[in-house]
Amino acid sequence: MTERIVLAYSGGLDTSVAIPWIKERTGRDVIAFAVDVGQAGEDLEQIRQRALDCGAVEAVVLDARDEYADDYLIPALKANALYQRRYPLVSALSRPLIARHLARVARELGANSIAHGCTGMGNDQVRFEAAVAAVAPELESIAPIRDLSLTRDVAIEYAEANKLPIRQSKSSPYSVDQNMWGRAVETGFLEDPWNAPIEDLYEYTQDPTIQRDPTEITIAFEAGVPVAIDGERMSMRQIVEKLNDLAGKHGVGRLDMVEDRLVGIKSREIYEAPAAIALIEAHTQLEDLVLERDVHRYKREVEVEWSNLVYDGLWFGGLKVALDSFIDHTQEKVTGEVRMTLHQGRAVVTGRRSDQSLYDYSLATYDTGNTFNQDAARGFIELHSLPSKIAARRDKPQL
Amino acid sequence: MTERIVLAYSGGLDTSVAIPWIKERTGRDVIAFAVDVGQAGEDLEQIRQRALDCGAVEAVVLDARDEYADDYLIPALKANALYQRRYPLVSALSRPLIARHLARVARELGANSIAHGCTGMGNDQVRFEAAVAAVAPELESIAPIRDLSLTRDVAIEYAEANKLPIRQSKSSPYSVDQNMWGRAVETGFLEDPWNAPIEDLYEYTQDPTIQRDPTEITIAFEAGVPVAIDGERMSMRQIVEKLNDLAGKHGVGRLDMVEDRLVGIKSREIYEAPAAIALIEAHTQLEDLVLERDVHRYKREVEVEWSNLVYDGLWFGGLKVALDSFIDHTQEKVTGEVRMTLHQGRAVVTGRRSDQSLYDYSLATYDTGNTFNQDAARGFIELHSLPSKIAARRDKPQL
Amino acid sequence: MTERIVLAYSGGLDTSVAIPWIKERTGRDVIAFAVDVGQAGEDLEQIRQRALDCGAVEAVVLDARDEYADDYLIPALKANALYQRRYPLVSALSRPLIARHLARVARELGANSIAHGCTGMGNDQVRFEAAVAAVAPELESIAPIRDLSLTRDVAIEYAEANKLPIRQSKSSPYSVDQNMWGRAVETGFLEDPWNAPIEDLYEYTQDPTIQRDPTEITIAFEAGVPVAIDGERMSMRQIVEKLNDLAGKHGVGRLDMVEDRLVGIKSREIYEAPAAIALIEAHTQLEDLVLERDVHRYKREVEVEWSNLVYDGLWFGGLKVALDSFIDHTQEKVTGEVRMTLHQGRAVVTGRRSDQSLYDYSLATYDTGNTFNQDAARGFIELHSLPSKIAARRDKPQL
Amino acid sequence: MTERIVLAYSGGLDTSVAIPWIKERTGRDVIAFAVDVGQAGEDLEQIRQRALDCGAVEAVVLDARDEYADDYLIPALKANALYQRRYPLVSALSRPLIARHLARVARELGANSIAHGCTGMGNDQVRFEAAVAAVAPELESIAPIRDLSLTRDVAIEYAEANKLPIRQSKSSPYSVDQNMWGRAVETGFLEDPWNAPIEDLYEYTQDPTIQRDPTEITIAFEAGVPVAIDGERMSMRQIVEKLNDLAGKHGVGRLDMVEDRLVGIKSREIYEAPAAIALIEAHTQLEDLVLERDVHRYKREVEVEWSNLVYDGLWFGGLKVALDSFIDHTQEKVTGEVRMTLHQGRAVVTGRRSDQSLYDYSLATYDTGNTFNQDAARGFIELHSLPSKIAARRDKPQL
Repeated sequence: MTERIVLAYSGGLDTSVAIPWIKERTGRDVIAFAVDVGQAGEDLEQIRQRALDCGAVEAVVLDARDEYADDYLIPALKANALYQRRYPLVSALSRPLIARHLARVARELGANSIAHGCTGMGNDQVRFEAAVAAVAPELESIAPIRDLSLTRDVAIEYAEANKLPIRQSKSSPYSVDQNMWGRAVETGFLEDPWNAPIEDLYEYTQDPTIQRDPTEITIAFEAGVPVAIDGERMSMRQIVEKLNDLAGKHGVGRLDMVEDRLVGIKSREIYEAPAAIALIEAHTQLEDLVLERDVHRYKREVEVEWSNLVYDGLWFGGLKVALDSFIDHTQEKVTGEVRMTLHQGRAVVTGRRSDQSLYDYSLATYDTGNTFNQDAARGFIELHSLPSKIAARRDKPQL
Repeated sequence: MTERIVLAYSGGLDTSVAIPWIKERTGRDVIAFAVDVGQAGEDLEQIRQRALDCGAVEAVVLDARDEYADDYLIPALKANALYQRRYPLVSALSRPLIARHLARVARELGANSIAHGCTGMGNDQVRFEAAVAAVAPELESIAPIRDLSLTRDVAIEYAEANKLPIRQSKSSPYSVDQNMWGRAVETGFLEDPWNAPIEDLYEYTQDPTIQRDPTEITIAFEAGVPVAIDGERMSMRQIVEKLNDLAGKHGVGRLDMVEDRLVGIKSREIYEAPAAIALIEAHTQLEDLVLERDVHRYKREVEVEWSNLVYDGLWFGGLKVALDSFIDHTQEKVTGEVRMTLHQGRAVVTGRRSDQSLYDYSLATYDTGNTFNQDAARGFIELHSLPSKIAARRDKPQL
Repeated sequence: MTERIVLAYSGGLDTSVAIPWIKERTGRDVIAFAVDVGQAGEDLEQIRQRALDCGAVEAVVLDARDEYADDYLIPALKANALYQRRYPLVSALSRPLIARHLARVARELGANSIAHGCTGMGNDQVRFEAAVAAVAPELESIAPIRDLSLTRDVAIEYAEANKLPIRQSKSSPYSVDQNMWGRAVETGFLEDPWNAPIEDLYEYTQDPTIQRDPTEITIAFEAGVPVAIDGERMSMRQIVEKLNDLAGKHGVGRLDMVEDRLVGIKSREIYEAPAAIALIEAHTQLEDLVLERDVHRYKREVEVEWSNLVYDGLWFGGLKVALDSFIDHTQEKVTGEVRMTLHQGRAVVTGRRSDQSLYDYSLATYDTGNTFNQDAARGFIELHSLPSKIAARRDKPQL
Repeated sequence: MTERIVLAYSGGLDTSVAIPWIKERTGRDVIAFAVDVGQAGEDLEQIRQRALDCGAVEAVVLDARDEYADDYLIPALKANALYQRRYPLVSALSRPLIARHLARVARELGANSIAHGCTGMGNDQVRFEAAVAAVAPELESIAPIRDLSLTRDVAIEYAEANKLPIRQSKSSPYSVDQNMWGRAVETGFLEDPWNAPIEDLYEYTQDPTIQRDPTEITIAFEAGVPVAIDGERMSMRQIVEKLNDLAGKHGVGRLDMVEDRLVGIKSREIYEAPAAIALIEAHTQLEDLVLERDVHRYKREVEVEWSNLVYDGLWFGGLKVALDSFIDHTQEKVTGEVRMTLHQGRAVVTGRRSDQSLYDYSLATYDTGNTFNQDAARGFIELHSLPSKIAARRDKPQL
């Protein structure tokens, strides 16, 4: 019986060619799997048909937008996940979802391997394969571009020679990955980190320098999860879509950075992530109001570790999962509202309130009626300073 | 012989009244010490004269702007110091400088104690007294407002009754601390964290929504220290002053946050710090280009610790000083240029370059000629994933 | 109506005198509360009667040994809690239990404050009062020794003058705190950290240099909790008691250290904790076998934070509780057996096994049949080394 | 011209066969390099001659014992380096030294690659190759066992067939790596982590259960470096050798653990490291006396990172080097003496003293004359507890 392989299929040139290419090179029957994680673009049914037309023995499609929002974006938001304090892990979040479904489809349809369209230079190959290893260790992973010499030139030639039904897109100079949490763009001239990005790169955001009236919104959270905008309850997916629209119009969430890839090199990346950036800012500010100081300080460290792990493809790894337990515990009180102004590239919080607030007006006010015991401060300072003071007696610093 | 005390003197109402008040309550002769850390405002000589007029037995003034920039702001910039990822430690940086000079003056002029004008509710009392304990453990610290019942109402009444030569300022509704690194504002209506800040609060920054042409600048760094703007070499003080001007015009560096004070309460704070925010962004982006990945990841953690320590008043503590050794080592290669656009409240880096860059075009490019060994990726992924894979064999996760 | 206060009562001189002393000084009626956390010593009923004889308006006693073992020692063992890598938090663990019951009794019997017998120099005052603040913020805390001038000399004199029914103990030169997790001893000559401890200090452990035959035991764990010794199922309390006996005979668990107290000073401490040290060693070794590498590395950091928090009296604080969520998650697989030899002061693990083991013989063996893919190593090393390699090309290190 | 390769040569079977094997398989001329890092065993000159007899075109030997002690063991001791809190990094410390010299010899003698005798399953291959990449990125690394199919069976057969002058050792069942910092042993029956080690495994330590009189020694440190034993000044190498002898006699430093290898698997390891374990214990206890509390707490975290990095082969990486700056700074005050008893498998510190001590008798004593300000404690506790108290007011915990 012929071996079967499940290919993560996008409908584009590379993975379309990969279908017959894998068959030719490995003899395996290819099952195409396409998933909607909010990347917009083509209809899933069209994609499914193209996979079959390219020679897939089966083609499975899935609208995973709600699953992606609920099971991947919500944990990322709870973790205020920003790699290198900037990048909201756009591609790093979609890969484990896709990998998990690849593995599920493989098991259901009797395949013993999976394939994906990544190169051998980037992070996404690691994320696909590490995720598969962590959920279905029996499956082999193959990357036709990396392992079967399927370069872009080869793919174009093959598609033409074999008259594959690839949609004729205008040849774009940009290499793009996108889903509802954001969009990543790479292109030749950006490979010099001194070159500035140009307006043409962006699709999720409009030029922030264009004059517009500001948009003010209020986002409500319950236990760390955004549940409403301006009083209207929505699902996470709806909130992300709505904020991509609202914040995108104001040019919020453009990022330009040099990033340390897991594979050991630095790369220059342009991202746009309007909803992600606005939500993380709002969520963080609400946490500032309701988390105890030491929880706050420690969680910010955990967030860095969480982000590094997910960036590094370890979504299903034991540590990331254990950190989720910690994070979930901290989110129990993260309930309240944040008012935010979207304008000219910025998402600025202008107010936050919560029944769970730890801000105590009577302790903080400079007005009469303050209940803070100023007498306590002397004793506090004395013991807080005591280690330094004892050291100073020893070290006799010069002034 | 009469005991002597050195008072950190601002020239304002509270510390002016404190001069005779301390004398009355403690019997000590008061030496006034005033320092310029770039807070603008009155001439030091005027301040000196007022101290004497209020009854100080001696009055010492010091222009410490360059010392502040070189010895306090440069280390803070190297540490990208942002408390709670936002606040660039404006007041927390000036306190240790002032405390050290208070201690120096005390030793030189034979005083056995120091005094400052802080209340018993805030961080600055801790910073003053912890710093003094760490450099001159023999000195006592007194806070007249906290320890000698010198409330504001008492001070106003006393000043009038005794015809103290206080400059009659319009009664400001704002409580402000400022120096060249930024400005902090507190006021009654902001004590509700739901209330939005108003334009009237700001002095260092102009309204970011006003239409202006963007300003593009290039900042040069050497070993982590900014040394030139647009090719013109300047001292740290000059660079900070210049950027306060340039970035302030574009409304860069406004911050609105709920903050965890060291004394255990949350407070709502408004800051504006145009130069600080612009410089930290530029410095961070240059580091992204020149630091090794693991140095980068670890330094970001050290920065948090450093910021917490300085926020907590432990500038002269052993740990902060030891962390400086680590940070200084990481800065040796942080040499290069960053191009930045200042516009509408944002300081956006659009390019960075360095002879010390670790960005390797030949490894990163997607063009032909790439030298990255894609074959290595398979082996890397296999071992990177191995712990998860072994765990998966044990745990048999469901899909 | 007379105010009431609940006193943590030990039955000893200080707290016995404190009963009438608090009444005299504050006018409050004293409710005595005594608890058994495995400290051995007197019968609770005797203690109860003495409290009443000393003037307590009520006296409540509680055998909390199982609660202490289950709710305090198990979490500490899961966290492998060792302050400064040595001290298993003996006193730090009993304080929150006692404080919580003090608060409970206060609420049940209508008291508005609690009292304890600690001095103003140590950690335990902080632990009592911080725990009370965290569970019953409305209660005031009083320490008669610190706050009401009840020095030891005063107490002795008062007891004699008032013929208080204090059990006449031989005047011990040692200051001791003990419970089932261990025993702390301080005494005059040990206040010089150069002086060696003497045999007379110890009660839980016998001299480890005495010749005895080794004892070999096997401890079984389920989800991080010890459940059996040598196949005999026991409660946590029974296991701790049994191991105090077995390991104590071999002199296991003696500790001699200079410790950083929360109040800012260093102190020299002698501890003995035979069961604690043996259990933590066994538990750690089992974790070595079943935890994924990155969970293992991170948990060891979390353990340090957890230990610091509990040492610092923050048992009920938000961060410690959130860390418990993380730790509990990691313990799910910590099931298996550890074989240990107790001998001459050492508890040495000689074997560990588990159905949840991540040790994979076929990957680790040097025998034929090894399934480790050595080819993967080259690629792994290449990318693992790549950041250093790129840096070396820049830095051209000299050899 | 023929290419040249420098081989890390031990004189044993594998690397002796590797000389002609590499020549046959790659055509490269082999330069043998042997180094003494205190592993005892054969004379370097004998080893040098054997290399030539096996076909090396050149053979270089080096006595690096002092360099190893001074440049590798001292930093490890300053870092109290223990991987997984147990393993003092025996092999991990010698590899970077050897790799650096391999690279130096390669440059000096015109080779373009290096070779080592490690398998593809362990850590040491990574350490060799990562170190070479970090100091001489132009050099290629080859592992004949991993890359050229030089299995042990092949090696034995080849040696016999070619009459290589291998010293006929009794076939040992143990796989051993050793140097002056310790000794690692692996062998078949130990691959079951449930099996106990047997006495025959050990060479550096004698059976700790044998009755002997205890040995008491005093170790003096200056700036973190041990400089004398019992008043006799010695070099680091001499101190390590002396302590291996003294502590080894008492069976100090035996370790039995399951360890997480960098390559992703767990392995069971037996180590013996008498000097390392005794010195780290002594050094740590001296640090307890002289380091400020927050330096102490943070340094213990840095030590874990440092140990992980060195274990992972990143000795020359940027982060490890930067951490050394931090550690060196903390060591400035680590000067003083530690008294230690060696007996029955234990190295027990019984006293420590230092002119740099931060232990303050007058603050710590319970005797009269104590200068600790107990009044300060109330205020300290109030603010230390305030965040928990405010949270409790919100959360209303049940008792």
